[in-house]
Amino acid sequence: MVSHVCLINGLVTDQISVRDRGFQFGDGLFETLAVEAGQPVFWAAHFRRLQAGASRLHLDCPPEAQWLDDIAQCLARLEGGEATLKLVLTRGNSARGYAMQHGALVNRIVQAFAGLPPRFFSGDEKPGRPPARLCLCRQRLGRNPQLAGLKHLNRLENVLARREFAPPIDEGLMRDTQGDIIEGVMSNVFALREGVLLTPDLSQCGVAGVLRETLMRLAIEAGWPLETGRLLPEDLLQMDALFISNSLFEILPVGRIDDARFGVSFSQHEAAARLNRLLQQAKHDAAPVL
Amino acid sequence: MVSHVCLINGLVTDQISVRDRGFQFGDGLFETLAVEAGQPVFWAAHFRRLQAGASRLHLDCPPEAQWLDDIAQCLARLEGGEATLKLVLTRGNSARGYAMQHGALVNRIVQAFAGLPPRFFSGDEKPGRPPARLCLCRQRLGRNPQLAGLKHLNRLENVLARREFAPPIDEGLMRDTQGDIIEGVMSNVFALREGVLLTPDLSQCGVAGVLRETLMRLAIEAGWPLETGRLLPEDLLQMDALFISNSLFEILPVGRIDDARFGVSFSQHEAAARLNRLLQQAKHDAAPVL
Repeated sequence: MVSHVCLINGLVTDQISVRDRGFQFGDGLFETLAVEAGQPVFWAAHFRRLQAGASRLHLDCPPEAQWLDDIAQCLARLEGGEATLKLVLTRGNSARGYAMQHGALVNRIVQAFAGLPPRFFSGDEKPGRPPARLCLCRQRLGRNPQLAGLKHLNRLENVLARREFAPPIDEGLMRDTQGDIIEGVMSNVFALREGVLLTPDLSQCGVAGVLRETLMRLAIEAGWPLETGRLLPEDLLQMDALFISNSLFEILPVGRIDDARFGVSFSQHEAAARLNRLLQQAKHDAAPVL
Repeated sequence: MVSHVCLINGLVTDQISVRDRGFQFGDGLFETLAVEAGQPVFWAAHFRRLQAGASRLHLDCPPEAQWLDDIAQCLARLEGGEATLKLVLTRGNSARGYAMQHGALVNRIVQAFAGLPPRFFSGDEKPGRPPARLCLCRQRLGRNPQLAGLKHLNRLENVLARREFAPPIDEGLMRDTQGDIIEGVMSNVFALREGVLLTPDLSQCGVAGVLRETLMRLAIEAGWPLETGRLLPEDLLQMDALFISNSLFEILPVGRIDDARFGVSFSQHEAAARLNRLLQQAKHDAAPVL
């Protein structure tokens, strides 16, 4: 039993050719998801996003069964029932230059890492971690609707934003070049104002997170007023609550935003707790896939 | 003797870890340059750009001597005195997530490919290839001054634009999200209008090509009026000549632009020929580095 397993096109190896177009150009997509009790969480939604992304990038997505075989093979070698999965799909290999090789096959990379990050809503009475402390990053997101929403491998903006903070700051808020708040470096953002749930519009940039999509769907089904729109830094001062989401830590209430220009504190985490109950129920209701 | 050699951190291999951040996030830079008579062409300018890019991305650039050692080692194994070099510098390896591993070392990849693409100005009377046929791509470039000009590994926009054409079209013109023409998919753009040399401003997006910088410097030194500014698709109809440049085919006059909305023909290639003479002289004057 090991703490990390990597399969490339179904074979146990962590070495990829420099001809791989993911390496050359970031020409591909990825997915990060949690495994609980041996099951990939919200698999159907993750696979749907991967397929949709592949279709937008004109990539052939390998069939679901092939991904699930790889995942099962990885998890069988890994310690414990909790894990983090990372799937990567690239446009395969080519020698040099942007042109694709005719008939080239995609590369499919599946990695499993033992364990999951701590969560705020831990199932116990006591939160599994403190509310998040955020900062406002200087690094901006460029706007391009043709790539917006995709979890593609061109992540230099996120990488540079991630350099801007370290503990005790947990996450950085990213603005686009216009100044709108779009997302966290590794999460999506939700705000609550007068009972309305607000999440930034991702039509120009940002990653359309699977947890974000799931929470939006659950909020709508629960009759919760939901708005997708603009969120400006100065709007944060008017919000009643703020939380961030991703597939690993799920829902994380924000306690503070530290910034040279202004600081905001939040202490109401009821909305996040309510959404989390809907989320845990949905997870519980999902059929196992492995 | 072989037609392709790859060194990773000085060792002969073409396999890189999936932990490499170039593969994971496109977290790195690259350079493509020509080798003529066993010498890397305009090496000083290429290395200067690599260093400047590394500094903007907060990457440690390995010393020049290390790159040149790798290059010499590659070229010694390669057939012929003409070659194409591709250098890649990434932020090294990390497990998962955008955060950098403390103390991680960069990865340095040097590849040499035998041969060079044909050039229009071949040295003989007869052009080495016909003038270029261009199209106008639908794929746009996002604007972000924080990444503009860099030859980084986040090249999905170029990859998608490259999908839009095939022979007899040689190159695609790319616009930014605002509609300005910025560059070719794999080249920079120069236009001539009433004796003035015009090249798009790259402060918001695009790759600041080494050939572009070199041609701009040579034009200025030759007292040629040069403008860096906006170039709109409709402006192309007013241009007297157009050419594209990159380090491999150097200067390539544009003969036609085909587009659903308009077509433009150019037949005056004197300006390109004059700049090419200055370029060949500069190349001839440069001291050998190997």
